[in-house]
Amino acid sequence: MVQMAVLGYGVVGSGVVEVLSTHKESIAKRAQEEICVKYILDRREFPESPFADRFTKSFDQILQDSEVRVVVEVMGGLDPAFEYTAQCLKAGKSVVTSNKELVASKGAELLKIAREMNVNFLFEASVGGGIPIIRPLSQCLAANDVIEIAGILNGTTNFILTKMIRESMSFEDALALAQKLGYAERNPAADVEGFDACRKICILASLAYGKHVYPHQVHTEGITQITLADVEYADNWGGVIKLIGQVEKTESGRLQTIVCPMFVSRESQLSSVDDVFNGILVQGDATGDVVFYGKGAGKLPTASAVVADVIDCVKHFKARKYLFWEEGSEEYVEDYRERPILLYVRAKTQDPEKAFAKAAQVLSGASRLSRKEPEEGELAFVTTCLMPEKEIREKLSSLQELEILGTIRISDF
Amino acid sequence: MVQMAVLGYGVVGSGVVEVLSTHKESIAKRAQEEICVKYILDRREFPESPFADRFTKSFDQILQDSEVRVVVEVMGGLDPAFEYTAQCLKAGKSVVTSNKELVASKGAELLKIAREMNVNFLFEASVGGGIPIIRPLSQCLAANDVIEIAGILNGTTNFILTKMIRESMSFEDALALAQKLGYAERNPAADVEGFDACRKICILASLAYGKHVYPHQVHTEGITQITLADVEYADNWGGVIKLIGQVEKTESGRLQTIVCPMFVSRESQLSSVDDVFNGILVQGDATGDVVFYGKGAGKLPTASAVVADVIDCVKHFKARKYLFWEEGSEEYVEDYRERPILLYVRAKTQDPEKAFAKAAQVLSGASRLSRKEPEEGELAFVTTCLMPEKEIREKLSSLQELEILGTIRISDF
Repeated sequence: MVQMAVLGYGVVGSGVVEVLSTHKESIAKRAQEEICVKYILDRREFPESPFADRFTKSFDQILQDSEVRVVVEVMGGLDPAFEYTAQCLKAGKSVVTSNKELVASKGAELLKIAREMNVNFLFEASVGGGIPIIRPLSQCLAANDVIEIAGILNGTTNFILTKMIRESMSFEDALALAQKLGYAERNPAADVEGFDACRKICILASLAYGKHVYPHQVHTEGITQITLADVEYADNWGGVIKLIGQVEKTESGRLQTIVCPMFVSRESQLSSVDDVFNGILVQGDATGDVVFYGKGAGKLPTASAVVADVIDCVKHFKARKYLFWEEGSEEYVEDYRERPILLYVRAKTQDPEKAFAKAAQVLSGASRLSRKEPEEGELAFVTTCLMPEKEIREKLSSLQELEILGTIRISDF
Repeated sequence: MVQMAVLGYGVVGSGVVEVLSTHKESIAKRAQEEICVKYILDRREFPESPFADRFTKSFDQILQDSEVRVVVEVMGGLDPAFEYTAQCLKAGKSVVTSNKELVASKGAELLKIAREMNVNFLFEASVGGGIPIIRPLSQCLAANDVIEIAGILNGTTNFILTKMIRESMSFEDALALAQKLGYAERNPAADVEGFDACRKICILASLAYGKHVYPHQVHTEGITQITLADVEYADNWGGVIKLIGQVEKTESGRLQTIVCPMFVSRESQLSSVDDVFNGILVQGDATGDVVFYGKGAGKLPTASAVVADVIDCVKHFKARKYLFWEEGSEEYVEDYRERPILLYVRAKTQDPEKAFAKAAQVLSGASRLSRKEPEEGELAFVTTCLMPEKEIREKLSSLQELEILGTIRISDF
């Protein structure tokens, strides 16, 4: 029998305890050991819980109990999650987490401790909830060079965008509905400003290319500026607007990575990933495009990914899983403005015809878009000549006849 | 350094040698060992190959060389692939294969030998080519009960159906094009009759439910009877026709499994899996719907999946991977005709109005379909009341006014 502890009895933590209890037999069969929750750490009291006798408020009790070989960290945040995780690893316990902030900020450091102590630090649930992505990326694609990863990594924003696209709901109304349905927090910043997606692309980038990418290195834009006019123009262009986290290795060996809304063509597999679903496209040099799709969040999907990692720990006490990446560096990530892109532009101008002709000339080519009831003086177009973003922005600001209302990048997948 | 052998230098075998050579460094880093191809077994001569010095015609030479710790079997077929694989495992060598016929027919037997000898028998490439599915299914979903698996498992037939749907090409023309492009063999039976998809669903079913399902236990229908009329009626119904391999556990603890063309709703993620792509939907009780998408065949995708397994073998010489399932039994799989389904029916009749009214009554409900230029006396409908297939077929044959031209099952995903 293997004893474990759960740090934090919130949504995911209680889900983990539930899945371990409802699937007890099949899990024991797969792990070839019975897995038993000895402690649950939480500041709160749960006297009514069937697991009431397992609760403790003392982290030290867990740390010092040598019977506990696997610790599940599902508290969220960095403090005290980082300190607790590091201490557990140093005490020779394997740690499983769903905490994307922890992995995105401190992954390299924690993986190094895990390697030194010959224990496992696993985090399948930190990206894509119940979608298997960390393990396939690290193992199945081991014989591929990853050319690019692009993903819809946040279910809340995807739900909001889907409502805007399908039901012409405004951003504000769609957000309010997401909050009502429990998909969005009362303070929705982490989702709608793109921070959550940013953490996830950091984890995927670090794993795919072997070197840590930190959240502050990823240029991140959310979806709060997207209007229904943009949605209509995207439709006219032949696609939909999705919040995308993207990373690719450039010829210099450095990375280009960004989180921002993008126009995604209807031909792309990611365009049909709707509602709270996530979709992650991995382009390998040998395997071509592979897409992983499923619910990216939720109590039971996330909990089942955590439990799968726990089973993996129990099966591999002797043989460490080789999840690993090095510490990163500032110069490892290129300036996003140096990436050649195509850009959608929505602007106000006195004479749309004339302004468009000039823009098309200055930008070496542009294609005009239309929608049913444009406002007076509204002009929308996409550029058609790849150009470093910096250059496009400079040229745009030289066009004094245009008052830019919004710009959205065009995806290359 | 780890020495390995490749049995068979066809499309996949030469791809494996190529991937190992082009990704030598990154593979060594991931495996933490250099991997070296010591032998390539083939009856043919390849004097021009850069690997000419590795070729041998003697399997015994490979078997008796204790330096060879991993053997890649990519010969295809059962004879001598089964004998060779069994002998390698018994000699304490791990075996990696892409041979779906071998795994679908002999998986339980070979996994048993592997377990007894404490070596690995891995076959990620046998289903879905370069799409990671075997490993995610066995590991990431370990904390889920699998409710259902449904997949587009054969790229050739999916290409043919896509051409029929998008370009109104006839089955014969689409098949000829697939052959011209190298997607279909000169003898296309294994693909178009559904045998290839059948082997793959056997492997997925065996893995998901822990007990072997053999190809002869799966009722298998191909796509040779599908007409453009069916494609048009499917469109009118609100979907497309796809060749689906499906398995689910019933309340009795036995399995329902089938390979056949199905009407798939446009709302389903599988409906947009087009051309030579494969898509596999796994429904877990905790994780909900998860979809894996990518190229299901091809030299490099398949080879990269084989090489990923080789890397896994090298990393786990001490700790066996716990891929395993038991021998199956005849009564384990239910009669497919007992499954309650909805059915699409295309028929000829003298008086379509009257015949439809009668059919709708006899079948406890039906919804009529239309297309642009129906033939004289053509009637098409879908049943709307779930009923065991056996019962539907009996009721249909009682309707003497109908000459049934074709029937297609409606998918439940």
